[in-house]
Amino acid sequence: MTRAFVLAARPEGGPKPSDFELCHTPESAPAEGEVRVRNVFVSVDPYMRGRMTGVHTYVPPYEIGGSIDGAAVGRVVESHDERFAEGDWVVSQLGWCEAGVVAGHRLRKLDPSVAPPSTALGMLGMPGFTAWIGLVDIGRVSEGETIYVSGAAGAVGSAAAQIARLKGLRVIGSAGTAAKVEWLRSLGIEAFDYHETRPKEALADGIDAYFDNVGGVHLEAGLAALRPHGCVIACGAISRYNDLRAEPGPRNLFLMVTKRLRLQGFIVFDHNDRFPAFLAEVGPWVRSGELTYRETIVDGLENIPDAFAGLFRGDNVGKMLVRVGPDD
Amino acid sequence: MTRAFVLAARPEGGPKPSDFELCHTPESAPAEGEVRVRNVFVSVDPYMRGRMTGVHTYVPPYEIGGSIDGAAVGRVVESHDERFAEGDWVVSQLGWCEAGVVAGHRLRKLDPSVAPPSTALGMLGMPGFTAWIGLVDIGRVSEGETIYVSGAAGAVGSAAAQIARLKGLRVIGSAGTAAKVEWLRSLGIEAFDYHETRPKEALADGIDAYFDNVGGVHLEAGLAALRPHGCVIACGAISRYNDLRAEPGPRNLFLMVTKRLRLQGFIVFDHNDRFPAFLAEVGPWVRSGELTYRETIVDGLENIPDAFAGLFRGDNVGKMLVRVGPDD
Repeated sequence: MTRAFVLAARPEGGPKPSDFELCHTPESAPAEGEVRVRNVFVSVDPYMRGRMTGVHTYVPPYEIGGSIDGAAVGRVVESHDERFAEGDWVVSQLGWCEAGVVAGHRLRKLDPSVAPPSTALGMLGMPGFTAWIGLVDIGRVSEGETIYVSGAAGAVGSAAAQIARLKGLRVIGSAGTAAKVEWLRSLGIEAFDYHETRPKEALADGIDAYFDNVGGVHLEAGLAALRPHGCVIACGAISRYNDLRAEPGPRNLFLMVTKRLRLQGFIVFDHNDRFPAFLAEVGPWVRSGELTYRETIVDGLENIPDAFAGLFRGDNVGKMLVRVGPDD
Repeated sequence: MTRAFVLAARPEGGPKPSDFELCHTPESAPAEGEVRVRNVFVSVDPYMRGRMTGVHTYVPPYEIGGSIDGAAVGRVVESHDERFAEGDWVVSQLGWCEAGVVAGHRLRKLDPSVAPPSTALGMLGMPGFTAWIGLVDIGRVSEGETIYVSGAAGAVGSAAAQIARLKGLRVIGSAGTAAKVEWLRSLGIEAFDYHETRPKEALADGIDAYFDNVGGVHLEAGLAALRPHGCVIACGAISRYNDLRAEPGPRNLFLMVTKRLRLQGFIVFDHNDRFPAFLAEVGPWVRSGELTYRETIVDGLENIPDAFAGLFRGDNVGKMLVRVGPDD
């Protein structure tokens, strides 16, 4: 038997413990081409909130009583795929569970001598890749520009802010605690606490691009601050994911016309062919320490739902992870 | 002496007659390189409403007590520029007045044997050019796609809807009266009256692009109906120009992310180098009758403010013009 969370109820507003149920499920034996993996780090990501609403968007929704798949890093326990051996570190989509059986072609092997395996869920995984795609392919940002990154201490935000800085941009970033602001400042980001300073004031000098992770007042302030021909890289809107009903959009959206702005939404999964190019550019920065990352690690499988809820409280500095098993 | 309107007060809400004052002004003699022009048709355009608010956007605002420049078509009365002769038809930025003196390099000569001069203010002028730039350069629309054009019986809308149809798109268009809907249907547009049918219902089959002239509920419906990777060509928002305060934007703006949409604002003046390409493609369609146009012509200089106010009441079918002098 192994343990896995299922969705017990669709969250109304912020996710609650009772929305999830930890179940014991029988373990199946891996068939030819399959691999049994024991999870070590399970990822909780803001986009998962959307999958809990029951609406099909770019990914199928989680179903009531169904498993909660998502990114996880673990080790191979038993392999029937010649590409993997016992003990290998792999990244999978096993999600919120202890262990599981996966087709080998759906796994990516990690080399722990290159970077700690947990980074495959953060700076060198989906969040970092999202930041890079947003800046490079969507925003097409250039050296010397000024960019605003909201949620700059989050997994995507801290990647976007630092990659932008390494590419020679001036970076303004918002975060919600003094500790986050301090960390960002130590990285060369002009950070502000949005509880203390209104985004509109922090952006008074004007910006060329806005990397939106938050939505709401941040988007409205970004539109107001953007210079003509600027761009909104529309990545996320964590301030809105728990809304009980659809809230109105920015009051100044007509600035899109008068300032000839572009607002471009994107989903990183569309850009998977660019993953090698991302790793080739960002991997060396991580190894050299030019690009730093933080992880907020919660221990214990049973704490996954609370770690997930914590994303919306801003509990995490950098990437939020749950350690569900020994990492040796 | 000649007569010209000046801005008497910044309109609050819909423009009122008392916001404008018709003044008698002395006539200056044209200097070398200048041309004296007698207006025949004066254009009233929705974008002028923004210039009355006193905020500098992409054009300077109109000043209290100052003239109201804008597109006009007229005839040369006296020329000190060898490129122009008495009687020539020209398009100028003389705006809301009877006559004036203009530097020759700021005039474009019209050939009345090619198209009626008034078309230089509509289908073959700024509105038609706006529609073409929006479709071709901003939306980059393709044959076989479905596009929604709001305000489809207006000057820009009727150009956008027909150009899209001639380029092989399926075109859905909204308008506010039965007569407008009937006209649009006769042109092969799937038109609906937005007082009778909610845009959301009219677009239930989905669209690939949305040419927004109206904003408000039309934009929200457009976002809801757009297919993944679709585009909003953000041209105007006539439903909002008279708002007394900034109203909230669409409640479903996050669809920009989940559907990877692009919303691109533009101002036609940025694209003036494309005007010859526009005339080369659209001119022949107008001459052959494949592209039709309507004009709503109000007579009398003194009626310019009411014609302008009529734009926001939907008084015009096609291009709204004011005839301020004899056209022979």
